[in-house]
Amino acid sequence: MARPRLTAEAYIEGIRQGERTILARGLTLLESKRAEDTTLASEVLTALWPAAYQTGFRIAVTGPPGAGKSTLIEELGMAAIASGRNVAVLAIDPSSGVSQGSILADKTRMDRLSQAERAYVRPTPAGRHLGGTAEATRECLALVQAAGFDLVLIETVGVGQSEIEVAAMADMVLLALAPAAGDELQGVKRGIVEVADVVAITKAEGELAPLAMQAALSYRQGLHLAPPKESGWAVPVLEVSSLAGTGIAALWETLGAYHTHILSNGYFGRQRKAQLENWLAAKIKQTWESRLFENSDYPGALIKAKQAVETGGWVPTIAQNLVAEVLKVG
Amino acid sequence: MARPRLTAEAYIEGIRQGERTILARGLTLLESKRAEDTTLASEVLTALWPAAYQTGFRIAVTGPPGAGKSTLIEELGMAAIASGRNVAVLAIDPSSGVSQGSILADKTRMDRLSQAERAYVRPTPAGRHLGGTAEATRECLALVQAAGFDLVLIETVGVGQSEIEVAAMADMVLLALAPAAGDELQGVKRGIVEVADVVAITKAEGELAPLAMQAALSYRQGLHLAPPKESGWAVPVLEVSSLAGTGIAALWETLGAYHTHILSNGYFGRQRKAQLENWLAAKIKQTWESRLFENSDYPGALIKAKQAVETGGWVPTIAQNLVAEVLKVG
Repeated sequence: MARPRLTAEAYIEGIRQGERTILARGLTLLESKRAEDTTLASEVLTALWPAAYQTGFRIAVTGPPGAGKSTLIEELGMAAIASGRNVAVLAIDPSSGVSQGSILADKTRMDRLSQAERAYVRPTPAGRHLGGTAEATRECLALVQAAGFDLVLIETVGVGQSEIEVAAMADMVLLALAPAAGDELQGVKRGIVEVADVVAITKAEGELAPLAMQAALSYRQGLHLAPPKESGWAVPVLEVSSLAGTGIAALWETLGAYHTHILSNGYFGRQRKAQLENWLAAKIKQTWESRLFENSDYPGALIKAKQAVETGGWVPTIAQNLVAEVLKVG
Repeated sequence: MARPRLTAEAYIEGIRQGERTILARGLTLLESKRAEDTTLASEVLTALWPAAYQTGFRIAVTGPPGAGKSTLIEELGMAAIASGRNVAVLAIDPSSGVSQGSILADKTRMDRLSQAERAYVRPTPAGRHLGGTAEATRECLALVQAAGFDLVLIETVGVGQSEIEVAAMADMVLLALAPAAGDELQGVKRGIVEVADVVAITKAEGELAPLAMQAALSYRQGLHLAPPKESGWAVPVLEVSSLAGTGIAALWETLGAYHTHILSNGYFGRQRKAQLENWLAAKIKQTWESRLFENSDYPGALIKAKQAVETGGWVPTIAQNLVAEVLKVG
């Protein structure tokens, strides 16, 4: 049941016209590691690139599991559509391959947004856990923008360092935190607070309302002590309830205010440029390292060096000379 | 006023006999990037390596600035000496080169420990901000152990990811946190809580005592929610006062209990082995990357690629092909 391969032109035209099926196949193409796909992907990406360079607005939505990111994204997406935006949602799993039970099971998430005419929520293809891998995120962002989606919400579901890497690919970071006890600690321990531009305390409703207020206060105090941001923006902490629908409009306005702020002071363009440089550096490193692994003598040399190290015979600093010698390096 | 160069034998013998001057010069040698020093350092390290392989005990002491790490280390060091240990203290600055005012000014720190016969506190050489760089930490640990110091306290003064890297070189991580408001948040936001094996709430004295108790409670709750450690150890939170001298004995006992725990369940040896593998991998990567930068065509190709990317002409994914071509890679 393999579908016929599309030509580069078919991809380019289809995506330019916002055809969701072609866009979905294009995103899959970008993530493919097969050699023939790589060449095709490069061609498609190059043609569509001008539509993504220094355009659109990309928001990384992050936070610990259970913070209510998906429902918050749905609410924000609907608010964005109402104000004239075309919205795409990408879920990025930096630790792709690891099963994420609760998210997998949640097949009905973003119901309204998925059916909205001016939105594209990347579906979760069978055989993969989530809608995207971190590696091709930058390329995927370019593609959805080329398809006409000028606001991209990136849902990160990973934890730790890789989550911060994904955040560094967006124009801004929205941190979602549930008010439940213990979550405060869980939320901040990942270093993500440092990169957040707006903090949303979710589930500010019913019994949780006082806890949410307390959490918001505590974060405001904490952020007050943080060093000023390079963007010149003071990080606000907002309380929202996706259930009650309260605080969403204010949050959407705040996100817009941030966009305006960084566009007007030039930070938007500077950050995009820096991101391009990082992207280039990452790609160069990747190509360079692949060369190390392609050397047919490498695995043998590595095994020898590892054995010498693990038995205590060699200091790693010396053992690596063996590898360098085999690879004719240094 | 250059001192005469020492031979490898002089280094090896001097360090084996615990001569502090030779040890200090040996540590400086390990950190040197000059080619002739590298060869000498390799020889010295290889000879002294057996004394460090799977021996000794290494504690990374970490925490935000102002948490009282130095005074805590002095107290713990004195307690360790009293129980028969030989103690070395290394201060590691992962972000070496960045001025660290408060630490620089604090020249009299660890007064008693510095003068103790069974202790070695690495002095801060003129012209450098701190006593060590993260890059050579693993090598330096081997050297001080070879000099007879079987307990090494590693004070990390950096922040963020690099601090966690240093922590990953130790057998255990002691996280020091001051009870002052805001510090709770500051302390945890760096992801260091995840790698802590013991948490010490410092300054549990006088007016701060209730705050310390509150902070300890809050951390205990938070840690209760954290996933179990691979070592099978439940992270305790202790209150200490270096000023009043309270809680230090209990803390020292807890550190000893952790040591016994991981020795008896084999985690100590497994962790050391994994650290050796990481060390080897890091060294291979380092040698390999240095080859990229040594290619005389690289800088030119990089500048061209950067320009093409920054003006929006090329996608980084494509631009790196130019670099690969110049370097005859891929």
